Amino acid sequence: MSLLLNCDLGESYGNWTMGMDTEVMPHIDQANIACGFHGGDPLTMQKTLALAKQHGVSVGAHPAYPDLVGFGRRSMKISGAELAALLSYQISAIEGMAACQGLSVDYVKPHGALYNDMMADADIRQTILQTIAAHHRPIKLMLQATPKVDEHRREAQTAGVQVLFEAFADRCYDDDGRLLARSKAGAVHKRDKMLAQVKQLASEGTVTSVSGHILKIAADTLCVHGDNAEGVAAIAAIREAIS
Amino acid sequence: MSLLLNCDLGESYGNWTMGMDTEVMPHIDQANIACGFHGGDPLTMQKTLALAKQHGVSVGAHPAYPDLVGFGRRSMKISGAELAALLSYQISAIEGMAACQGLSVDYVKPHGALYNDMMADADIRQTILQTIAAHHRPIKLMLQATPKVDEHRREAQTAGVQVLFEAFADRCYDDDGRLLARSKAGAVHKRDKMLAQVKQLASEGTVTSVSGHILKIAADTLCVHGDNAEGVAAIAAIREAIS
Amino acid sequence: MSLLLNCDLGESYGNWTMGMDTEVMPHIDQANIACGFHGGDPLTMQKTLALAKQHGVSVGAHPAYPDLVGFGRRSMKISGAELAALLSYQISAIEGMAACQGLSVDYVKPHGALYNDMMADADIRQTILQTIAAHHRPIKLMLQATPKVDEHRREAQTAGVQVLFEAFADRCYDDDGRLLARSKAGAVHKRDKMLAQVKQLASEGTVTSVSGHILKIAADTLCVHGDNAEGVAAIAAIREAIS
Amino acid sequence: MSLLLNCDLGESYGNWTMGMDTEVMPHIDQANIACGFHGGDPLTMQKTLALAKQHGVSVGAHPAYPDLVGFGRRSMKISGAELAALLSYQISAIEGMAACQGLSVDYVKPHGALYNDMMADADIRQTILQTIAAHHRPIKLMLQATPKVDEHRREAQTAGVQVLFEAFADRCYDDDGRLLARSKAGAVHKRDKMLAQVKQLASEGTVTSVSGHILKIAADTLCVHGDNAEGVAAIAAIREAIS
Repeated sequence: MSLLLNCDLGESYGNWTMGMDTEVMPHIDQANIACGFHGGDPLTMQKTLALAKQHGVSVGAHPAYPDLVGFGRRSMKISGAELAALLSYQISAIEGMAACQGLSVDYVKPHGALYNDMMADADIRQTILQTIAAHHRPIKLMLQATPKVDEHRREAQTAGVQVLFEAFADRCYDDDGRLLARSKAGAVHKRDKMLAQVKQLASEGTVTSVSGHILKIAADTLCVHGDNAEGVAAIAAIREAIS
Repeated sequence: MSLLLNCDLGESYGNWTMGMDTEVMPHIDQANIACGFHGGDPLTMQKTLALAKQHGVSVGAHPAYPDLVGFGRRSMKISGAELAALLSYQISAIEGMAACQGLSVDYVKPHGALYNDMMADADIRQTILQTIAAHHRPIKLMLQATPKVDEHRREAQTAGVQVLFEAFADRCYDDDGRLLARSKAGAVHKRDKMLAQVKQLASEGTVTSVSGHILKIAADTLCVHGDNAEGVAAIAAIREAIS
Repeated sequence: MSLLLNCDLGESYGNWTMGMDTEVMPHIDQANIACGFHGGDPLTMQKTLALAKQHGVSVGAHPAYPDLVGFGRRSMKISGAELAALLSYQISAIEGMAACQGLSVDYVKPHGALYNDMMADADIRQTILQTIAAHHRPIKLMLQATPKVDEHRREAQTAGVQVLFEAFADRCYDDDGRLLARSKAGAVHKRDKMLAQVKQLASEGTVTSVSGHILKIAADTLCVHGDNAEGVAAIAAIREAIS
Repeated sequence: MSLLLNCDLGESYGNWTMGMDTEVMPHIDQANIACGFHGGDPLTMQKTLALAKQHGVSVGAHPAYPDLVGFGRRSMKISGAELAALLSYQISAIEGMAACQGLSVDYVKPHGALYNDMMADADIRQTILQTIAAHHRPIKLMLQATPKVDEHRREAQTAGVQVLFEAFADRCYDDDGRLLARSKAGAVHKRDKMLAQVKQLASEGTVTSVSGHILKIAADTLCVHGDNAEGVAAIAAIREAIS
């Protein structure tokens, strides 16, 4: 089983820098690029697309709630019609800018609170699926690989949308196959445990949960983080572990 | 000679309404639709595109400086790279949203201060032309019809961009073929003088300047305004005058 | 028992106009002035303060979630520390601008979704109370008059904050003393029923609920709306009814 | 002659960090704190004020053009009335938040393009002076110390505003006493030359220009930068040089 590596990139904004994009891009397969609503001004988007092109990395739209100061990490009670429109706007913006560089956007990965809301709320998931289904060209949706993978895959098929499922390299799973809350002890793996989890995901398609159960996690791609030098080194180690 | 009618539309923002878009759309040929930077949130853009589709009106991107509180009417000293990127972002956003409704964006008309800066500053005009030339599909640029029409057409041809020139129905021209400053007496025509100017533009391709000179103004389209009931009535009268 | 009239004002933004502030101000006692986060750019704030001063109207800060495109009407999951800071920012901004005109800000009335969240969520109410208690000068908090008035008054007393309670002139109350949801039939009173409710509130301190129960609603002030000509006329009629 | 040290601080925004504020604050006398328009969300402002209080550092408002994505570094053609209002808004916001911590704002230092425009354009300088003069409590204005110090001081006296003049430690001056453009060779001093300039400013009140002229630069305070570890080290060295 082969696992891709995806990473959130292009999250700088104007004069503020975030993430070691230049260092990360050579090591990943899929770049989730911010579209301006939680980060990623137009010039940053353009540069990030050029960097993805240079390294042959697949491009994903990474749309968010309209909350710059909150970095898209705060849930907002937005109507379905507004959510559909702001997704369409962000996807279209990066898609056109990608096309200007000869690139196409392969998938959508909602960002932050919108990602969490998508996983937790069937109505929001449905709005996202319908928006992507109504898009003028095919585009996949990236969701979290949980024990509900099959249910989510069926929802997507009904909507006519292809999906990608992602697992997390450095996060401990609870017994229900969800990420252990960051506030809990052991929520974030250190290097050794992270690499063990990555190898198990790649070879067995499972993770070992916080209390030792083996859970099936059928993932297509692994979410990695490139915020700092340690993160970049971890990505290189993960790449080696799954090669 | 046939003249089209173009109008700025979709400039509402969230809970704030601007313009009588529903009343105006049936009477015009080209809708310049705001792209979110001076007005026009994603949902408003979507609705305005649907309205344009319903009435078979050609769609133009109406990008602006990033200045919501100033409605894009304040010049900003922005680098060429930033200007190119924010134009590409806005054009792409509306283009993708239009494609989702089976529409294509035919032209770009810069908004407000960006429009004025484009007409006054060759560097900014060049940045706009190069951005449109580098776009992934052909799209026209709308500029003001002035005595420099031929020079501007040559610049565009060199860049490989098709152009549209617009004249103003209700504005008095100075002797150099520019719009008389709004602060000057007689700058804005009342109904009779406006209709006379429209007929002269349509039949002769000229305007009579503030001091009585006949100026050649080779326009493809007339800019009309739909802010209020009087404006909407004027559009209907203009339509009749040029039919 | 005397009832004041309060109204949301200063909600225009840049080039977008909202509300008939000039017509409303002469008829009210308290102006809830937007502070820039859901409406009300600095120049609008300045003009609205001047208008309040001219008519001797008490000034309240009307802070909101940071959501311009949603007009502050969408709940956002914001941490207590962030909420405290953005309240302090908005209150301070209008307070200083008021002081420049010789005015003082008498109270805070949270706007839109923040108001609803304050009434529904004790933690948010507590954050708001503590923020106002920690303010550098005394300032009241305006809440909705519900059957929980006494409980809310005790919470405020414990925090050391003075309160004002408001009732609604034009909204039907359910049997629990809450506003009947707008989606329900009869949720918004027409003129006659509104005036009857106003008189009953002023003379008896009660309302008659949707199913005919008499509920005690101990209000200091009535919320009125000045969005259009009908609203302004209603305000004048309400004023007459309670004089 | 004694020189204070001032530094721009509190320019982080939401999830984006900028500047080594914690390391810088112990070494400076005056903190120019961003007010939300180019950087500095409310929570960042609150934390920066607390840090200033902890180290007994004087607080200045650091207001900017409303241009988050451009970090306030792009000149905007804003009317005098709008400029006055947005200055009053930003000054008031930080002033009230400072008062909640028992601090008072001592001065205003315009940020970025607004600072440059203030120095270059007498109308903008006048708007700023009048806004500060009309403020409800006394507050100083910080300007650049140039050969026009006396002229600027007279303008301020006429307006009834006290001023502070600042010189730059690390920037080479041209023969007119202006900062040599960053694009020119030698525009930014390395450590030795910087310290020499600082000592000369402190002991003689002069700088040696790019072509060797001695210019009188009557400064009250030196602008220092704390963006990175080298900048923080330089501040400590400057402090030692002028002690």
